[in-house]
Amino acid sequence: MELHNFNSGPSILPQQVLDQAAAAIHNFNNTGLSILEIGHRTSHFMEVVQEAQETVKRLMGLGDDYEVLFLQGGATMQFMQVPMNLLDENGLAAICDNGVWGNKAVKEANLFGPVKVVADTSDKKHTYLKKDLELPASTTYLHITTNNTVEGTQWHSYPQVNVPLVGDMSSDIFCRPTPFHEFDLIYAGAQKNMGAAGVTLVVVKKSILGKTNRAIPAILNYQKHIDAGSLMNTPPVFAIYVSLLTLRWIEQEGGLAEMEKRNNEKANLLYNTIDELPAFYCPIAKEDRSIMNAVFFLTDPNREADFLVLCKEKGMIGVKGYRTVGGIRVSMYNALPLSSVKAFCELMKSFAEKN
Amino acid sequence: MELHNFNSGPSILPQQVLDQAAAAIHNFNNTGLSILEIGHRTSHFMEVVQEAQETVKRLMGLGDDYEVLFLQGGATMQFMQVPMNLLDENGLAAICDNGVWGNKAVKEANLFGPVKVVADTSDKKHTYLKKDLELPASTTYLHITTNNTVEGTQWHSYPQVNVPLVGDMSSDIFCRPTPFHEFDLIYAGAQKNMGAAGVTLVVVKKSILGKTNRAIPAILNYQKHIDAGSLMNTPPVFAIYVSLLTLRWIEQEGGLAEMEKRNNEKANLLYNTIDELPAFYCPIAKEDRSIMNAVFFLTDPNREADFLVLCKEKGMIGVKGYRTVGGIRVSMYNALPLSSVKAFCELMKSFAEKN
Repeated sequence: MELHNFNSGPSILPQQVLDQAAAAIHNFNNTGLSILEIGHRTSHFMEVVQEAQETVKRLMGLGDDYEVLFLQGGATMQFMQVPMNLLDENGLAAICDNGVWGNKAVKEANLFGPVKVVADTSDKKHTYLKKDLELPASTTYLHITTNNTVEGTQWHSYPQVNVPLVGDMSSDIFCRPTPFHEFDLIYAGAQKNMGAAGVTLVVVKKSILGKTNRAIPAILNYQKHIDAGSLMNTPPVFAIYVSLLTLRWIEQEGGLAEMEKRNNEKANLLYNTIDELPAFYCPIAKEDRSIMNAVFFLTDPNREADFLVLCKEKGMIGVKGYRTVGGIRVSMYNALPLSSVKAFCELMKSFAEKN
Repeated sequence: MELHNFNSGPSILPQQVLDQAAAAIHNFNNTGLSILEIGHRTSHFMEVVQEAQETVKRLMGLGDDYEVLFLQGGATMQFMQVPMNLLDENGLAAICDNGVWGNKAVKEANLFGPVKVVADTSDKKHTYLKKDLELPASTTYLHITTNNTVEGTQWHSYPQVNVPLVGDMSSDIFCRPTPFHEFDLIYAGAQKNMGAAGVTLVVVKKSILGKTNRAIPAILNYQKHIDAGSLMNTPPVFAIYVSLLTLRWIEQEGGLAEMEKRNNEKANLLYNTIDELPAFYCPIAKEDRSIMNAVFFLTDPNREADFLVLCKEKGMIGVKGYRTVGGIRVSMYNALPLSSVKAFCELMKSFAEKN
């Protein structure tokens, strides 16, 4: 049976990336050694880090005022690492709480200084984004979650503000051409559009660092990672290599413009199918719908379980909604082929007709 | 040319582990999906975590008063995470500074409370261990580096103290039967004896937690990781799987007693060869020599470069000493076969004869 991998993360990767990753476990770059057995300070691996950094900058169109780091701990680590590096009692973190991840960012920032939630969309179960933001005068930075993996919303243009903008792009990085230069700090767990779990991309504008007096532990200090060329200590070698393979694949396929074309085609097909079928509905405001994660429901909630059984029978993987939201979630990251979305839409139609 | 991988870490892994890891990238456990593409909350992966936790406990002979966690950031993260969780202004961290890694542990602990270096072996360039320790009455815990990867010393029995004992076992974990129960917290980056880079093993006695009033960020809070079954957020899925494969291999080969037999045989052969050949010398006190990392020098330092060239020609990888120590370092982790040490000793003899 053909499988269709709609996992929300870790999620589908290009077949080429999997083949190259497996080959490198046997013999990395003709060294005769496995990628799992090489020293991280060898030229072989330092070239991997350098190429990955350069590719990120090229895809983002950013210059030398930004640094690219490959860290560990995922977005959950960044929820505390960002305020630890940027915030103190003299400033304020303005945060948009548009769901599960923004809410965690709020909780962690509270440990490091004043926080103001400048958008709280819980009144409508986070089915929309509030874009009209008022920032207190003392705001040090504004933090947004560019794509809400759990709730199915996505910022399609970003807040225009005169304070540093921080973006958690874990679930929509590199999904399309993006004005990355509007951000001062971008982070993303790799395990959706950029590779496998185990590495976190952090892109930071150097000029925003060094403004708090807090003593920051070395491993959590962005500046120290920059000074060490992202090789302060043993990095997650294999995860970084898989990210490089995925970044190369994005460029080879045509870059972010091509990713956008594919992602829009998939998302349009799915949302149109949902909107056309009375058996399904998507509660997300149309202008805020995510092209990465479509969250929707069965009009008759009693039929949800049957639909999920059918999905399983037909090889549709990972389509059960997040535990606190319920319903259906279909994740359509860069590597997901259009054919999988077509197959899923056919299944929806068939289910709707039979019931 | 046959390669002999003496890398200090990331380092050699068993061939069986590499084969199984590569196979899982194509098809993990007959799921039809790659290990890189599966959800971390699926039963498939939760079984991986559970088996890895159980195998660690079995190898360590520890009971339910300990918890096993798979975290990120390596020993460098633990240098700050241990004091953040255990230390406050009312206590004191007693730390043995026996080289590069212990020294970093001192620096990070200083950010969280009083620290006393209870052993400083820099007077003799860290070529020995000081075992006669005096702990201040306010000591909260004693921290030792059980094996000094850079300097080539290893604790062969541990300090008997009446305070919690914390061990950085990054470079000698599972090298032999060990009284793990003498420790209250053990941590180890996986990339030597336990797998690939990207995951850190933390084993903690639950009763030592919860004694400071510090607000600890979720991702750095051991108790919260325990409460979440080591799945608080997306873990480094592949790195944990490689650790499981390596743990299984240790048990299949005969467990820690068999590892000790092999490691002693390799270390005895190498140290005897060094001691017998006047062209080489090992400055480490005999009773403190590491069976994992042998650090030694050429009697005539002018010949070191020639020897390293010869090593490279003969496929001896990773034998250049650490940058601040110089000389030669031969790492002999569990997966290194005796045949590699034999080949290296033959090379030493041949070099000594010709010069």
